Amino acid sequence: MMKVTAMTRAGADFEAWRRPNAARLEKGLAQALARQTPGQPAAVTRLLEAMSYALLGGGKLVRPLLALAAAEAVGGRAREARAAALAVEMIHAYSLVHDDLPAMDNDDLRRGRPTCHKVFGEALAILAGDALLTLAFQTLAEAGRLSAEAGRRAGLATLHLARAAGAVGLIGGQALDLAFEGQTGSGSNLVQVTGEMASDMERRKTGELMAAALVTGACLAGGTLAALNRLRRIGLDLGLAFQIKDDLLNREGDPALLGKATGSDEARGKASFPAVCGSPAAQREMDRLARSALAGAAWFKLKGRPLIWIIDSLLDRQS
Amino acid sequence: MMKVTAMTRAGADFEAWRRPNAARLEKGLAQALARQTPGQPAAVTRLLEAMSYALLGGGKLVRPLLALAAAEAVGGRAREARAAALAVEMIHAYSLVHDDLPAMDNDDLRRGRPTCHKVFGEALAILAGDALLTLAFQTLAEAGRLSAEAGRRAGLATLHLARAAGAVGLIGGQALDLAFEGQTGSGSNLVQVTGEMASDMERRKTGELMAAALVTGACLAGGTLAALNRLRRIGLDLGLAFQIKDDLLNREGDPALLGKATGSDEARGKASFPAVCGSPAAQREMDRLARSALAGAAWFKLKGRPLIWIIDSLLDRQS
Repeated sequence: MMKVTAMTRAGADFEAWRRPNAARLEKGLAQALARQTPGQPAAVTRLLEAMSYALLGGGKLVRPLLALAAAEAVGGRAREARAAALAVEMIHAYSLVHDDLPAMDNDDLRRGRPTCHKVFGEALAILAGDALLTLAFQTLAEAGRLSAEAGRRAGLATLHLARAAGAVGLIGGQALDLAFEGQTGSGSNLVQVTGEMASDMERRKTGELMAAALVTGACLAGGTLAALNRLRRIGLDLGLAFQIKDDLLNREGDPALLGKATGSDEARGKASFPAVCGSPAAQREMDRLARSALAGAAWFKLKGRPLIWIIDSLLDRQS
Repeated sequence: MMKVTAMTRAGADFEAWRRPNAARLEKGLAQALARQTPGQPAAVTRLLEAMSYALLGGGKLVRPLLALAAAEAVGGRAREARAAALAVEMIHAYSLVHDDLPAMDNDDLRRGRPTCHKVFGEALAILAGDALLTLAFQTLAEAGRLSAEAGRRAGLATLHLARAAGAVGLIGGQALDLAFEGQTGSGSNLVQVTGEMASDMERRKTGELMAAALVTGACLAGGTLAALNRLRRIGLDLGLAFQIKDDLLNREGDPALLGKATGSDEARGKASFPAVCGSPAAQREMDRLARSALAGAAWFKLKGRPLIWIIDSLLDRQS
């Protein structure tokens, strides 16, 4: 929940920035699917419904908002980053659908609703994930058709996004997560997961896509290479801090605030930085990463304000 | 098997063209994976092995060879289409891995070897498919970094490939195939699959990616819009003819030549043009499509020879 409980001045400014942008993003995501639907046979319409269910399920839009904030940070306008924002949310949504599958994490619930495969069946969930991944690249490519310069920017954004989402990025992170599962805690471990290994896995699973959101958003808005490099580091720091926060909340958060049971990761033997290094060390590492991300964002001066608001809201949350 | 049994003059010319190109493609596919491997942890290396198993499994390289032939047809060089060729083969390989999954067609064998999920497990097979799909777009985006013009061409190719592979193309075709399964033959059908519906499904499942192979290959080589449109029609005709040929071989081919049992599609109640309209009508439709594809290719005069060789070899095959 990107909500600031005690509504400070910054919190009010953030809401005034976030709300219209989030509304436009939701509309953009819905439109990207809706314009494919006319004239399709029933089975394809059903596939598009599964995609819609996964994509429009009330996500917090963290990654697409980061893309818009990055465009502003490099002196552009939020709307220039629109295609990058939609694309990263499509990738995020597809990754959740596939991660939830019975062969993977086998989750029945996501954001308080039945997971995609529970509603549409496994086959259609796999296909809906594939199609969201494909649509992400289509969306970026379409944005590139507007002009030669738009094409150049979209091409570079595509490259960054594909690397972040690929075998050595997001997908590799999920492979590591599956390999580590059950390998912390009890004595039956074949491989001892170290803090470094857990960090590396979480960088891939969360950091890479957050970094890609910032980089692709800034890229479409014409950011310099120096700005893109800086944003990538901010994204990696933020992603890891965000993941540690998530893991800490799962270990120690208030179930009433979270709306779900805590301790589930521990029970599954899920490898995470807090599980491996303990909560106090994890808290210190999160604080260090947060400071680093905020210091990076400060480089953009006033233009970096939306980015700072997002970072603050993600790391201050209690749910 | 793209082999001309009675080695005619055209057959010898084709082999002289095909063999070095196929060797370069195989090398290119292997390299695209190999350069990601250094320094990766064991679980990611295993993921890359699963991708390699799926991608380098002795496929006929029909689609990438079509991409190269299209580049030559529009007056370019085969090597200009290299990224498109690799990308379409990656998409083809990923689609087979996901189609074979237990939740989909549940196939244990592919090209005479255990399917990817049989060797690497379901989770890694899903991830390997996802990563091959992602790598296809990364490969095109990398080719676009060479120059502004290369970027423009790669962007357009990405758009064509994403549309062909997406929810209303290849993936939609698989959704239709699953929906039709068991709906021909017995009286328990809820939906009567017509010839038109079967054609539409096979256009998506086979035609769109073959058309995209030709279009993206020609696109990277600087083909005109008129040429791309013509190649798209050739690809759709060829794809449907190729699929009908496949279905006819499955119904009536020589199991000894095919290296697998025949009649399996019928036993599963798989919808196909021959199953719906009967073999004689399917044979006539295949001949009509083949003539149409060859007439289209003839427009490119001598430059279209590799394209004509491929079309001939695909439709004359007995296995």
